[in-house]
Amino acid sequence: MTSTIESPVLRTNFEKSVAEYWNTNRIDPVNLRLGEVDDLYHHHYGVGEPDLSVLEGPADTRDERIIAELHRLESAQADLLLDHLGPIQPHHKLLDGGSGRGGTSIMANRRFGCEVDGVSISEYQVGFANEQAAKRKVADKVRFHFRNMLESKLETGSRQAIWTNETTMYVDLQDLYREFARLLTFGGRYVCITGCANDVTGLRSKSVSRINEHYTCDIHPRSAYFRALADNGLVPINVIDLTAATIPYWELRAKSSVATGIEEPFLTAYKEGSFHYLMIVADRI
Amino acid sequence: MTSTIESPVLRTNFEKSVAEYWNTNRIDPVNLRLGEVDDLYHHHYGVGEPDLSVLEGPADTRDERIIAELHRLESAQADLLLDHLGPIQPHHKLLDGGSGRGGTSIMANRRFGCEVDGVSISEYQVGFANEQAAKRKVADKVRFHFRNMLESKLETGSRQAIWTNETTMYVDLQDLYREFARLLTFGGRYVCITGCANDVTGLRSKSVSRINEHYTCDIHPRSAYFRALADNGLVPINVIDLTAATIPYWELRAKSSVATGIEEPFLTAYKEGSFHYLMIVADRI
Amino acid sequence: MTSTIESPVLRTNFEKSVAEYWNTNRIDPVNLRLGEVDDLYHHHYGVGEPDLSVLEGPADTRDERIIAELHRLESAQADLLLDHLGPIQPHHKLLDGGSGRGGTSIMANRRFGCEVDGVSISEYQVGFANEQAAKRKVADKVRFHFRNMLESKLETGSRQAIWTNETTMYVDLQDLYREFARLLTFGGRYVCITGCANDVTGLRSKSVSRINEHYTCDIHPRSAYFRALADNGLVPINVIDLTAATIPYWELRAKSSVATGIEEPFLTAYKEGSFHYLMIVADRI
Amino acid sequence: MTSTIESPVLRTNFEKSVAEYWNTNRIDPVNLRLGEVDDLYHHHYGVGEPDLSVLEGPADTRDERIIAELHRLESAQADLLLDHLGPIQPHHKLLDGGSGRGGTSIMANRRFGCEVDGVSISEYQVGFANEQAAKRKVADKVRFHFRNMLESKLETGSRQAIWTNETTMYVDLQDLYREFARLLTFGGRYVCITGCANDVTGLRSKSVSRINEHYTCDIHPRSAYFRALADNGLVPINVIDLTAATIPYWELRAKSSVATGIEEPFLTAYKEGSFHYLMIVADRI
Amino acid sequence: MTSTIESPVLRTNFEKSVAEYWNTNRIDPVNLRLGEVDDLYHHHYGVGEPDLSVLEGPADTRDERIIAELHRLESAQADLLLDHLGPIQPHHKLLDGGSGRGGTSIMANRRFGCEVDGVSISEYQVGFANEQAAKRKVADKVRFHFRNMLESKLETGSRQAIWTNETTMYVDLQDLYREFARLLTFGGRYVCITGCANDVTGLRSKSVSRINEHYTCDIHPRSAYFRALADNGLVPINVIDLTAATIPYWELRAKSSVATGIEEPFLTAYKEGSFHYLMIVADRI
Amino acid sequence: MTSTIESPVLRTNFEKSVAEYWNTNRIDPVNLRLGEVDDLYHHHYGVGEPDLSVLEGPADTRDERIIAELHRLESAQADLLLDHLGPIQPHHKLLDGGSGRGGTSIMANRRFGCEVDGVSISEYQVGFANEQAAKRKVADKVRFHFRNMLESKLETGSRQAIWTNETTMYVDLQDLYREFARLLTFGGRYVCITGCANDVTGLRSKSVSRINEHYTCDIHPRSAYFRALADNGLVPINVIDLTAATIPYWELRAKSSVATGIEEPFLTAYKEGSFHYLMIVADRI
Repeated sequence: MTSTIESPVLRTNFEKSVAEYWNTNRIDPVNLRLGEVDDLYHHHYGVGEPDLSVLEGPADTRDERIIAELHRLESAQADLLLDHLGPIQPHHKLLDGGSGRGGTSIMANRRFGCEVDGVSISEYQVGFANEQAAKRKVADKVRFHFRNMLESKLETGSRQAIWTNETTMYVDLQDLYREFARLLTFGGRYVCITGCANDVTGLRSKSVSRINEHYTCDIHPRSAYFRALADNGLVPINVIDLTAATIPYWELRAKSSVATGIEEPFLTAYKEGSFHYLMIVADRI
Repeated sequence: MTSTIESPVLRTNFEKSVAEYWNTNRIDPVNLRLGEVDDLYHHHYGVGEPDLSVLEGPADTRDERIIAELHRLESAQADLLLDHLGPIQPHHKLLDGGSGRGGTSIMANRRFGCEVDGVSISEYQVGFANEQAAKRKVADKVRFHFRNMLESKLETGSRQAIWTNETTMYVDLQDLYREFARLLTFGGRYVCITGCANDVTGLRSKSVSRINEHYTCDIHPRSAYFRALADNGLVPINVIDLTAATIPYWELRAKSSVATGIEEPFLTAYKEGSFHYLMIVADRI
Repeated sequence: MTSTIESPVLRTNFEKSVAEYWNTNRIDPVNLRLGEVDDLYHHHYGVGEPDLSVLEGPADTRDERIIAELHRLESAQADLLLDHLGPIQPHHKLLDGGSGRGGTSIMANRRFGCEVDGVSISEYQVGFANEQAAKRKVADKVRFHFRNMLESKLETGSRQAIWTNETTMYVDLQDLYREFARLLTFGGRYVCITGCANDVTGLRSKSVSRINEHYTCDIHPRSAYFRALADNGLVPINVIDLTAATIPYWELRAKSSVATGIEEPFLTAYKEGSFHYLMIVADRI
Repeated sequence: MTSTIESPVLRTNFEKSVAEYWNTNRIDPVNLRLGEVDDLYHHHYGVGEPDLSVLEGPADTRDERIIAELHRLESAQADLLLDHLGPIQPHHKLLDGGSGRGGTSIMANRRFGCEVDGVSISEYQVGFANEQAAKRKVADKVRFHFRNMLESKLETGSRQAIWTNETTMYVDLQDLYREFARLLTFGGRYVCITGCANDVTGLRSKSVSRINEHYTCDIHPRSAYFRALADNGLVPINVIDLTAATIPYWELRAKSSVATGIEEPFLTAYKEGSFHYLMIVADRI
Repeated sequence: MTSTIESPVLRTNFEKSVAEYWNTNRIDPVNLRLGEVDDLYHHHYGVGEPDLSVLEGPADTRDERIIAELHRLESAQADLLLDHLGPIQPHHKLLDGGSGRGGTSIMANRRFGCEVDGVSISEYQVGFANEQAAKRKVADKVRFHFRNMLESKLETGSRQAIWTNETTMYVDLQDLYREFARLLTFGGRYVCITGCANDVTGLRSKSVSRINEHYTCDIHPRSAYFRALADNGLVPINVIDLTAATIPYWELRAKSSVATGIEEPFLTAYKEGSFHYLMIVADRI
Repeated sequence: MTSTIESPVLRTNFEKSVAEYWNTNRIDPVNLRLGEVDDLYHHHYGVGEPDLSVLEGPADTRDERIIAELHRLESAQADLLLDHLGPIQPHHKLLDGGSGRGGTSIMANRRFGCEVDGVSISEYQVGFANEQAAKRKVADKVRFHFRNMLESKLETGSRQAIWTNETTMYVDLQDLYREFARLLTFGGRYVCITGCANDVTGLRSKSVSRINEHYTCDIHPRSAYFRALADNGLVPINVIDLTAATIPYWELRAKSSVATGIEEPFLTAYKEGSFHYLMIVADRI
């Protein structure tokens, strides 16, 4: 007997293609190789001043050194994000919106001792991340769900903090922040790190289009974030332009063996000003 | 003496790059060669069933035959647009928003005998189009201005009808329709032909990103049109999905010598459903 | 023991009077007599070119011929509506908002083989329509409920398509489309056929007021439809002005024995332009 | 030489038909006969307890007595309106939106000694009202203009107070209050007396439709007033339901020779609760 | 075992401090002493003309006389509020939003015989009020809950009428009226008596700031009420400025032994016009 | 001859009282004495780490030392603000909204060489500031106007940057940002330093009320800033919580002879979290 039951997690062809992309990119050279460094697998980029001495020294371990350094910068980015979640206590619950292979969630649990739920529309990533949690013996506290962050199915008002680490370009911001407003307790916090297009340069940029094409995503303009936050009871308390802090990461990555070719549009976009790397910290009112 | 006076027409780097693109693309193989057919120079695509017999016959005039046929389909598109402007009388005034080399404006004057103003941010195109109007001895009725359609400087309430023929992907729709609402008389009409992204497929598509990159534009989702129309007192009376009617044009073009390579993303996007070719007819209330 | 429990279906005096009107108009000459033709009972008007030869021939069967022809045009209208529901599959579920005596619901099930729920605030109509479904042995697939379409009590996201066939003048459009947005799955479709007032003629018309009085309804302006659709995530893909296509129906009906006198205001309103007969096809995003 | 210049005052067919109605209704039995009483010509209805003794006494002067009494109640209504304009000083300027034959404007000038501008889209009424002002030697202070109150052409911020006395059912409220917000000084006052439909009875009522048909107007629901006021910086300070206070006026009028037949729908609508006679007093912020 | 479960009733530090204020002010000289008069304990102020003869006569009972008179005016205010709830029947259910020691709820039950739920974030007040209901043997009909009126947990559509008697300055009006819109049945009524700041005087006033400081509250501007009502389907039918009617109450209170010092800012604010005492009566649509 | 002409600058009693406050506070101990240090007169507070050694040393010059240090921190605050205006060129024009005695305007001109207009509703301050500009021989570039910043009368699109330094608590933010959106060129920048109430603590705080009373102002909640920015095309790029950076300034000031008593509510509010000292940097789109 054939069944026509469809997964409610993937609502659109777009979501299906994103999920497939992340499901099948199991041998993704960048994220996996970087994750091997210390078993924290990230799906975001890095910030901070790289140690350029990694470019020097023996040629045969050069790549390894670069990869370790890139990974260090990615973990620094995740740490920066966690620094802005506010005073999290062990009894609080957090949400990692678009949790990838689970790196940031595991770092959050390690730092705060609290429960973290991650959701992802990639069934493969969810499995991978849950395995990581099990391996680290935190599976009772850190759980990954094969769910859409627009419909997390978590309890209303249950979250003290939520973050999205470079995942908002895949979803409608009004839908997303309506869901987050539902999930956060009054006074809870939302931290977003994202690339966004600069309204002031007119929103159109060949480089941003190339990034959109590469990741099959739709990078939002900066204005869309602040409009959607205002419309959903999320009030900024800190906004930091991380563009200058992420450019060295990309320059280093461009010189490594894990370069994918997307480094050039990122660097062009950041340098011409058509693209920002932004952190937004907001409170739920 | 150096002057710091800046052209008010071009407000952003983006507008400057668009203007430069159209200013310097003077030997653009597609539009110019098609225009040579009957001196109507279009900057839009065609609709309708092509006469595929042009593909057959002597090889040395094959391209000429294809080009004439493509041009016929583009003029058919312009005629379809003009069919929906409502009952235009000789004393009415029209606006061609993003008038390119002036083809549709000249057709409108020829059909209705009324005044037409066209605006473009390409100084080269404005000059070219004014020359065409002079050559046809309608320069007293058909005028092209080096102006931004977001700030047309035309008189409030002066327009009986306005159209945009594949030019809205370069501007903010709220800004555009605010200006058009200002210009149109009560009961006046707006006709828009445009490509737009399909919200239902999730808005993200590699093909649409490639079109954005090719033209350095930002294709709006279909929903953005209806939101901006509703917010600015423009009420649809007819909406026609022209996607099926434009696909044959692109298939023919892909086989011609004027093909630029962008044909494939257009055909892919139209066929996968991530992109519509839409005509919207709306009244100013 | 007397009970003060009130039916939640009928919330206002207005709803009660509408329900009563349709409950007691059991011998309504138009709809019932037309339904007798082939047991499809409609509560909407027709479109298309009538066969005027029905006016000629033997006087004693003239009325019968006219009635059959009117019924054919009404079924043609319902077919046109169903043509725009998109690719419906047998496992999909549909909603007929304001289902009257059930004609269009039964046609939809016949065409697509899928489940259809109809809701109506007339208990009499619901009973009648359920009898029709039983008679045709589709009661397991086609169900009519004594419910308000503003509170259908159907499951969130359960509908692939919804239509309203001349029933929206009885309800608040924002309330209606909020409910429909809730019911439709992402990418689902809504088709509306309705008469609406023309904002451009200034919204006031003696004929429209007479229609409002006749049916105790409140015909919305065209702008209200597009505003409410935009506000509730319903994006048009086709809008067709059916006014010219429905006028011949009314002219024929005016000559028949089932004429009720309301034909003249309809014809006047359509011809003076104060009233449109519109089909709107929209996608849920 | 033929000219195509159109009057900018009348923008739509609807406005033209309203203007024509009031232009040609020069022998309107009600308003003119009532105005003859003391040369104050009103175009609104009355409030207060009538002296029913006018129904008794000699038959030949019965009508005269009734008319005088109706007129007294209409003047009482105008006085009530003027009571709520706030402390008006001689150097203030007022606007009478839809000034009819000028009665309320003349009363305002008589009471406050200030300047009053009245606007009307009936050229006949404007002429009539200006003649009244001249006759009373206040033409330097009380001026009537053949203008649309949606585009009064008066100076921004020039008005201390504005009123509309049963004229808002002819216009779009958002357009109207946008214009009034422009005209009023900060802290200025707006007083509206109007009939409005009761949202709570479901907005649809045969009687309201009959009134709409009779006056070719479009009675707004009560909610539309408060929505449009809120959207345009006009904040209520007093709202009074005058329904009970106006019913006796209509009952008396129904018994008089100036009855037009519209008395019955008014009385039905007021008594069934589908219609309110409302005074709204609001401040410009 | 220690528990970290927090009361969901008190969401913010502000709410906690308000609750604490009312919990600990058990010997509040004003409200308690006034309540002793006839066991109706109010937390609002009075309206109407006081009997100033209470100031005369024997000195030793002067205070008692003043207190009885203040209490009479407070009950008169509650009666005025109840007069505007519409025709309440015994099977209806009411909500007292911010019910204090329960006085108005008990008066409502006494007048209409219906069920009344009161909610308060002061656990002490809830206990006190429930004791009062028990003492009067109406505990089966009049119930007080330790709940936030922003999240009443009462059933959707269950209320025929709701009132707030000087409690809205403690909450966000949009949140409050969203909840009330949820609770009220279609056509149900909301009555609000409140002090509000006058937008017209520029919203800032030392006296209003002193009242805010005294009660740790945040007095809303008048405009905020009408904006929030309009945004939540609550349409005014009566608005009465009670400022003049409450001033004598304050003047009398200033002369009594229960004066707290806050009388002077109230009187200054009312008299300078920076503050209104307003009753708003609105219908749920 | 008496004239009734009123200054259009001061629209409300509130504005008049603010103007009067700043007009008559000519011997304001804080701002004037601090200004004497180097002739830069500020009307805002300071940020940064104070040199606490000023508290030590000879008692007779202790106050002088504290005052110089407070002044240094205020200038540091102004410098921080100017750091965020973006790349200002000599041909640009700036606006100082609420310019006080002109300190920040003069610093801006000194740094960028460009034109600066300051507006203030205190005629005294305008005169004082213009004298300062004359004394420094920059009166041709730095001009102060006796105008309301809500109606600056400056040319549309004329400003490259605008700032408000602790002046927004006196005005409506929607009105203010509508005016600033009009004045700023596309891509221009707005910098705001302000105290704002914390929505998360529930908006009500005795300390904030005391500050409101002291300055007769109305401190906005943080959410109001982001709502008004979003509504007026102003998109944040940096938001910095300066609370921790300003507390040492207040602690030092509390120990000085220029303390006014308002130091304690500021320190309480900052420390209890009910009040933020915020810098918002936004771009005009």
